Amino acid sequence: MKHYTIGVDVGGTNIKLGLVDRSGVIVARAFLDTKSFYKRKTKLIDEIVGAIRDLIDEKKLVSKDILGIGLGLPGLIDSKRGIVNFLPNVPGWKNVPLKSIIQKKLYIPTFIDNDVNVITLGEWKFGAGKGYKNLMCMTLGTGVGGGLILNGSLYRGEGFVAGELGHMPLNEKGPDCNCGGSACFEYYVGNGCLLKKAAKIFKRKDIQLPEVFRLAKHGNVRAIRFWEETAVHIGNGLVGVVNLLNLRLIVIGGGVSNNFQFLGKTINAVIRRRAMRVQSKMVKIVRAKLGDDAGIIGAQVLVKEAIRER
Amino acid sequence: MKHYTIGVDVGGTNIKLGLVDRSGVIVARAFLDTKSFYKRKTKLIDEIVGAIRDLIDEKKLVSKDILGIGLGLPGLIDSKRGIVNFLPNVPGWKNVPLKSIIQKKLYIPTFIDNDVNVITLGEWKFGAGKGYKNLMCMTLGTGVGGGLILNGSLYRGEGFVAGELGHMPLNEKGPDCNCGGSACFEYYVGNGCLLKKAAKIFKRKDIQLPEVFRLAKHGNVRAIRFWEETAVHIGNGLVGVVNLLNLRLIVIGGGVSNNFQFLGKTINAVIRRRAMRVQSKMVKIVRAKLGDDAGIIGAQVLVKEAIRER
Repeated sequence: MKHYTIGVDVGGTNIKLGLVDRSGVIVARAFLDTKSFYKRKTKLIDEIVGAIRDLIDEKKLVSKDILGIGLGLPGLIDSKRGIVNFLPNVPGWKNVPLKSIIQKKLYIPTFIDNDVNVITLGEWKFGAGKGYKNLMCMTLGTGVGGGLILNGSLYRGEGFVAGELGHMPLNEKGPDCNCGGSACFEYYVGNGCLLKKAAKIFKRKDIQLPEVFRLAKHGNVRAIRFWEETAVHIGNGLVGVVNLLNLRLIVIGGGVSNNFQFLGKTINAVIRRRAMRVQSKMVKIVRAKLGDDAGIIGAQVLVKEAIRER
Repeated sequence: MKHYTIGVDVGGTNIKLGLVDRSGVIVARAFLDTKSFYKRKTKLIDEIVGAIRDLIDEKKLVSKDILGIGLGLPGLIDSKRGIVNFLPNVPGWKNVPLKSIIQKKLYIPTFIDNDVNVITLGEWKFGAGKGYKNLMCMTLGTGVGGGLILNGSLYRGEGFVAGELGHMPLNEKGPDCNCGGSACFEYYVGNGCLLKKAAKIFKRKDIQLPEVFRLAKHGNVRAIRFWEETAVHIGNGLVGVVNLLNLRLIVIGGGVSNNFQFLGKTINAVIRRRAMRVQSKMVKIVRAKLGDDAGIIGAQVLVKEAIRER
């Protein structure tokens, strides 16, 4: 009986693996260090395959207990053909037919997608988005990502790159972004920019965002203003999405969202103020539920949706 | 044999009706004046029904030759239940079960939707968007509207109000819009604003946009700059949509688009410069093909899609 899936969440610094039962619970885990395999793509794939084998053995399972393997990767993924087109932060990956490579080694159906899409699938079926038909999952971290569930299925766009919320411009004019554009959402609320701004305000180069949150919670006026300004930018960025897509739900995940309670009120207020009446009344802004496990759990949804569509 | 559909395009000032054959050609037409029926809703519906009957008679057809009637209306339409929730520019329309009213009078299957959605369906199946799976149709006029075909079907959103492109903010701060928001796309490129701006530049209160186009074509520097600035705003507004939705095509329709040749180059240049590489390489910006007939022809698509989904 095929009761399990395996989820692999490939990040720029580490790789998380998990064996997931049919109720979406992770029953075994493994970790790999991405950086030690930079430019050693074949070795990295072998390590992932080895870790998957170990997970199966650990629970005394065999291949045919596994419905499928799902991998989320940080880059441009052709999920239809199973090819990793490009990973901007992992050197040496270009046009790698990862799906077929892994399938040939393990004889288990394998599916790959962009990491934010996989997280979105996880939050949709097992997390904050359960039961919704039209939602966006936004990840706030070094980058700002977005995944879209529209009309009850993942919307990938014409070339698998839909959801680039981080590169919606917030203004007509503004600072250049490394995407080639300017005044991008990510410029205002990505971790890189927030850290620089915090370092300036608090005159400490090494300040980290969790500390700025702690300061705000203890009533530090500059820290409170820092997060309020951030939340206003987030709200401003979401107004256009709310008006254009008439979503029922926006799920906010990623590192910064750990302090959603603190940001949520202002984000909501901006949307209520600026978005159109019908759209704004209809949309709920909530915090993601699955945290760091979203990629592993979401991989199960990726596998199931792909098998259903075949 | 059901070879025909009837399309009704309800505007704030007039109503266009057409009998459309299966190849999308309008074989008979009728017109009504909306304004003479302000606050006389029942009378207006009777007139529409009468005009439909006349169209059928004119071609010596009977009810059973008509596959269905499709109506596009300028407002908030619950296309699923067939209810006109609200028409902002036609007084007296609120929660009108138009679909069932017309069906009861004519015994022909009737479907209603927002006017921009119907235009989008028309351009998709019979116009500039033929064969595409992911596109947006943008209408530039008094208002700025948008209709979305995503994954090969019309995306209406959670509450039938998706596509409000005109109310995506172009900037974080800017002039108030009558939607309740601020710095909306429509503020920068809607006819109202363009006319005000043109009146100021050319120091003539009564100047009309076709004239400003003519001036530009004859080399008037201020007129050329006027349209270039407008095209830059349009491009800026589309960059976010291109990055977020990874569309294959954007169709530009509405009055201002009659001069697409003049605007297209700059709109394209802004998108190539500001949008992400993969998205920007993939998207084409073209002029709408069906002109004023899009609503009548699109109604056929509305009817056929609705019947197919039943």
